[in-house]
Amino acid sequence: MFNKEIYIDRRRKLLSTVNSGLILLMGNEESSINYHDNQYPFRQDSNFLYFFGIDRPGLVGLIDVDANESMLFGDDVSVEDIVWTGPMPSLAQQGSEVGVSKTANYKSVHNYLDKALKAKQHIHFLPPYRPENAAKLNYWLNIPLEKLKDESSVILIKAIVAQRAVKSAEEVAEIEIAVNTTIDMQTEAARLAQDGVSETHIAGVIHGIALSAGGHLAFPTILTVNGQILHNHSQGNILHNGQMLLVDCGAETAMHYGGDLTRTSPVSQKFTSRQKELYDIVVDAHEAAVNFLKPGKYYKDAHLLACETLVNGLKSVGLMKGDTKDAVAQGAHAMFFQCGLGHLMGLDTHDMEDLGEQYVGYTDELKKSTQFGLKSLRLGRQVEEGFVLTVEPGIYIIPELIDLWKSENKFLDFINYDNLEKYKDFGGIRIEEDLLITENGNRILGKNLPRNTELLKPNN
Amino acid sequence: MFNKEIYIDRRRKLLSTVNSGLILLMGNEESSINYHDNQYPFRQDSNFLYFFGIDRPGLVGLIDVDANESMLFGDDVSVEDIVWTGPMPSLAQQGSEVGVSKTANYKSVHNYLDKALKAKQHIHFLPPYRPENAAKLNYWLNIPLEKLKDESSVILIKAIVAQRAVKSAEEVAEIEIAVNTTIDMQTEAARLAQDGVSETHIAGVIHGIALSAGGHLAFPTILTVNGQILHNHSQGNILHNGQMLLVDCGAETAMHYGGDLTRTSPVSQKFTSRQKELYDIVVDAHEAAVNFLKPGKYYKDAHLLACETLVNGLKSVGLMKGDTKDAVAQGAHAMFFQCGLGHLMGLDTHDMEDLGEQYVGYTDELKKSTQFGLKSLRLGRQVEEGFVLTVEPGIYIIPELIDLWKSENKFLDFINYDNLEKYKDFGGIRIEEDLLITENGNRILGKNLPRNTELLKPNN
Repeated sequence: MFNKEIYIDRRRKLLSTVNSGLILLMGNEESSINYHDNQYPFRQDSNFLYFFGIDRPGLVGLIDVDANESMLFGDDVSVEDIVWTGPMPSLAQQGSEVGVSKTANYKSVHNYLDKALKAKQHIHFLPPYRPENAAKLNYWLNIPLEKLKDESSVILIKAIVAQRAVKSAEEVAEIEIAVNTTIDMQTEAARLAQDGVSETHIAGVIHGIALSAGGHLAFPTILTVNGQILHNHSQGNILHNGQMLLVDCGAETAMHYGGDLTRTSPVSQKFTSRQKELYDIVVDAHEAAVNFLKPGKYYKDAHLLACETLVNGLKSVGLMKGDTKDAVAQGAHAMFFQCGLGHLMGLDTHDMEDLGEQYVGYTDELKKSTQFGLKSLRLGRQVEEGFVLTVEPGIYIIPELIDLWKSENKFLDFINYDNLEKYKDFGGIRIEEDLLITENGNRILGKNLPRNTELLKPNN
Repeated sequence: MFNKEIYIDRRRKLLSTVNSGLILLMGNEESSINYHDNQYPFRQDSNFLYFFGIDRPGLVGLIDVDANESMLFGDDVSVEDIVWTGPMPSLAQQGSEVGVSKTANYKSVHNYLDKALKAKQHIHFLPPYRPENAAKLNYWLNIPLEKLKDESSVILIKAIVAQRAVKSAEEVAEIEIAVNTTIDMQTEAARLAQDGVSETHIAGVIHGIALSAGGHLAFPTILTVNGQILHNHSQGNILHNGQMLLVDCGAETAMHYGGDLTRTSPVSQKFTSRQKELYDIVVDAHEAAVNFLKPGKYYKDAHLLACETLVNGLKSVGLMKGDTKDAVAQGAHAMFFQCGLGHLMGLDTHDMEDLGEQYVGYTDELKKSTQFGLKSLRLGRQVEEGFVLTVEPGIYIIPELIDLWKSENKFLDFINYDNLEKYKDFGGIRIEEDLLITENGNRILGKNLPRNTELLKPNN
């Protein structure tokens, strides 16, 4: 937990932006796995953490803007509970650590909200992503489940996005701890990527590194010899010489700030020449984007620059052809790079994603494209000093997409389908770093983790 | 997945027991962590797994008893999805692997249930433990959320308990795989339990062992130098010589059968003499219960026998006094052993717990006691051949409980409070094994994992 002044300051800022009404921030509950009392590791809601800092289930935070007052609702454990749990700090104690002096039991939040509704006080709440919190909002506020998202507060969303998007020095320090643990995970994964080893073994060991550092995973690890499958959470394969292993993983610190890095390394000692060719193209795209990003630049332009760099490289190896800018403008590069260049990162890996991409990654002026490829770009707006974000270009050879587009005669001017057919078994490559936007440019977070082909396997 | 004949047979048996109506078995959905698309590892519902075997989110299984027919409802991935996920088997294909030929999209389950309701067909469903499934039942069946538990089908619950309680040979084999992985976790934890090592490091490494074996954890690991805290999921301590480390962990196989073992080992090379004294008492209680259990015996009697063995031992070291049977009958032993001796185990660690302890662990004739200690005994009924269960006695010195009972002058005839005061910093010890009840007795599952004090740290 940060110093209490930080939480007081964050709430003060939020209150002054929202201006009137009552701000309702739902903490998370425990989530059951296969029966009620068997539960996933508890994860507090990130907005609750940001403004109230307390990492335990069953809490609600209220900021009464009109009364200039913060409150916490939750239940203390009974004497009988303490026999099972050991001594626990009271909510009053925990509240005082984050500068909240007014606390009450959980049940009373309903009364409090009822009174506010009767007094015609506007209740600002966020769109829920947990079904139990949706059910509570439905019950407390008498809003149908299917309308909760539409009736959530855009004023509150915009105010929170403005605050959380710019990371303070202490947040950056915490993120960098997570990034460094993630680098340890990546280094170990590359070392273990040997012929005959299973994906699950490596995934297990690097999960252990995240836990050993005192936190959790920030998101389920993608660790696969089939890097071309973008939403890949199966880890059932044995590694073989000649394959590439793509590892996209992130540690989360005990305070729940996370890292998010990807490396693609050869299972054998070295890449094949074909692998190295495409790998170096991804390195070039990565460097182009990193060199471009500084305050005031549109992240969408960094994305397009990376796409153009990919197209130039793919032209040089005979997989694409034609005018580079035209190819990117029309979306032909999305045969190889179907997703976006990156996203904001912080307490959430896709930071604040559930507040709505239109508010987090775009603006009233800049709307998200609907073109295949660009429509998966989570971040388009100008970047600012203090933003923390990922840069993660890739080349993914997806047989299903080749067959689909070829059958539609799509982008015949830009894609060399004949050559591409020979790459159908190639797989996928991604390189991902976490950047802090600084006053004049950016800084790649964390200690050094090699990106180039020679240094990927330092211990071999 | 087992052979499809097994699933066909299980459904046939269920259908014949339930006799009429429609059996509705809800599969699980993905569970969001901190935003919608960041999700915990998916865990299928155990009853769905048992009767339909398919391990993917977003499914509903129906067994129409009156029509003697099984159906699966769920959506196939679109061509666009396949670009992200890679090729996926269709529900029709997956259905055929478990002997279900009738499949339909998810939406149509609502229509199907509507028709059944109009035709006055009784719909048997189980009490939901996931909020999203509760919301669906509420919507489909028009039953208020708070009444879902009461209106769930006792006929269905009893039929499922009867089937799932007795494990088949192939289930026992699968459980034993999980137990053996759990033993690997325990062995490594005992090896790593050295001065200066952190609880999180050991927890991380053994979590990695479970993942590496191709599965998950069956439940969040308890790994602590404060073994007296029974519901302990914090792992923030550094181990010191002279402490004991209690590790209660379980691996789950890819098919979701689990193990559940506990060992308590010294951080230094050997127990202190005081630790060894109490440890040996727990070993004696464990042996007494294991030697007692065979078909026809009440598990409650095994519990009471273990309690008496504990009291005899505690009398020998001066912590208890008086008549042993009286002490146990009145519940005085619960100062040291506050919980139950064990529980059924299978697809769930506390097998079928959410179907209701009154059906799983007790019978219409044998009701659960309300006495402190006994009221935490999850299993009381006679055990049968094919039951798999845990035996896990312990001694837990809980300072808060000592203070509480002493202030109430409770059990002055049985507890030597003066001596007990000197043990307030002792901690807790538990020894847990997984047993299969056999024709004439029982068998401890898995390869050998030492229980006695000499062999706990084989590599040192």
